[in-house]
Amino acid sequence: MSDIVKGKVYLVGAGPGDPGLFTLRGKELMEQAHQVVYDSLVNDSLLDLAPQAKHVFVGKRAGNHSLVQVDINHLLVEFANQGHTVVRLKGGDPTVFGRIGEELTALNDANIDYEIVPGITAGIAGPAYAGIPVTDRKLSSSVTFITGRGATESASKERLATQGTLVIYMGMKTMDEMVRRILEAGRDGDTPVAVVQWATRPEQRTVTGTLETIVEACSAKDVDSPAVIVVGEVVTLRDDHNWFENKLFSE
Amino acid sequence: MSDIVKGKVYLVGAGPGDPGLFTLRGKELMEQAHQVVYDSLVNDSLLDLAPQAKHVFVGKRAGNHSLVQVDINHLLVEFANQGHTVVRLKGGDPTVFGRIGEELTALNDANIDYEIVPGITAGIAGPAYAGIPVTDRKLSSSVTFITGRGATESASKERLATQGTLVIYMGMKTMDEMVRRILEAGRDGDTPVAVVQWATRPEQRTVTGTLETIVEACSAKDVDSPAVIVVGEVVTLRDDHNWFENKLFSE
Repeated sequence: MSDIVKGKVYLVGAGPGDPGLFTLRGKELMEQAHQVVYDSLVNDSLLDLAPQAKHVFVGKRAGNHSLVQVDINHLLVEFANQGHTVVRLKGGDPTVFGRIGEELTALNDANIDYEIVPGITAGIAGPAYAGIPVTDRKLSSSVTFITGRGATESASKERLATQGTLVIYMGMKTMDEMVRRILEAGRDGDTPVAVVQWATRPEQRTVTGTLETIVEACSAKDVDSPAVIVVGEVVTLRDDHNWFENKLFSE
Repeated sequence: MSDIVKGKVYLVGAGPGDPGLFTLRGKELMEQAHQVVYDSLVNDSLLDLAPQAKHVFVGKRAGNHSLVQVDINHLLVEFANQGHTVVRLKGGDPTVFGRIGEELTALNDANIDYEIVPGITAGIAGPAYAGIPVTDRKLSSSVTFITGRGATESASKERLATQGTLVIYMGMKTMDEMVRRILEAGRDGDTPVAVVQWATRPEQRTVTGTLETIVEACSAKDVDSPAVIVVGEVVTLRDDHNWFENKLFSE
């Protein structure tokens, strides 16, 4: 019917916050984009890489998820059908709790080409900036990522019982319950925990404690979302390796 | 004693293979480096970003790990003590099975400054390029990364029993035993499995099957290291979303 060649949608990970952790491919695509459709956890400074593009904010609002997601899908399809190059910029990595599935399905249904450009996920980079490698030869030979949203589904007993590292995304609202479940699953109350707020940004802050103390510690220091929660022995590595926040304080 | 100002060591993730997935910060540091100390899984084309630097290959040889690691530590300390800017380039992300702990300790002991620059890990990006988001709202609300090396330690029953996604790094040599253990831990023989070789490189190849068939499928198609093994329902998403390997075949 139409003479317009369909555009392509690039589902691009914006990384955890520090714009230096954005990918070369992501930058290249930003420079070619007609539209950049971005979420609330994307660092605004990345938009400066695409001054030629239209910037469309589609940050999700609480209590209105499914409707908004459908609208985002429509938008991507509509822009691509107009022949445009669309960058769909998602915080962190698009395949790690990024709800990429719905968008991929919508693009498939509309017969629109896409490419996935991974990004660095906050659950790895936040701890790294806090001096906490999520795996360590002596302390932890596994790392599990779960989400605090839909805690029931995600928090099955065997996952929470892991003696490896556990990283919880979007877990601040349900931290109380999550910590209780982890204890019930059999982990020791003394297990070290760190909460990393504003991962990899200049304002990154980290609070440490144990499964028994962390809820109170966060409340006392007013640490809240956005944050990742790290549970496991690797948290102790921070004592020796806290390179990033130290640097900020000493500058 | 010496008038030389100590240099700094940057522990930089090289990403999973596709040089487009390298970070902006990584590139900037490569351009400033005096030495680039790199491993076997680093894409050689990244070295072109540092034509001014000395490139030192320290790829590990089988059966000689600890000695070589000590030598690498010495090298980093020596270069920094000479006042140089050192990029320690590691495949994937340095904190995910990257043995960064030993190097950080050596740098601490020698009182040398360092910075960690995360990279994109093959266990997320390889599946993404194979059309397999490691998490999915409907199919999997968790992802666990383990390593096939030291399988006994890493493969505790509760980790292997997870109904979420399981990603195994460096698992090809022990795949037979690992699959057996996953079945023993209670996962269904029909659970979908994908093996992604040469993650995100043009030569990426993916073989799919189930826990019961994957060992034979890999052997039949001659798929071997380097590869990541993905276990879980998310593997089925590949049927609809295999954007990268399809593209290669159709070009």
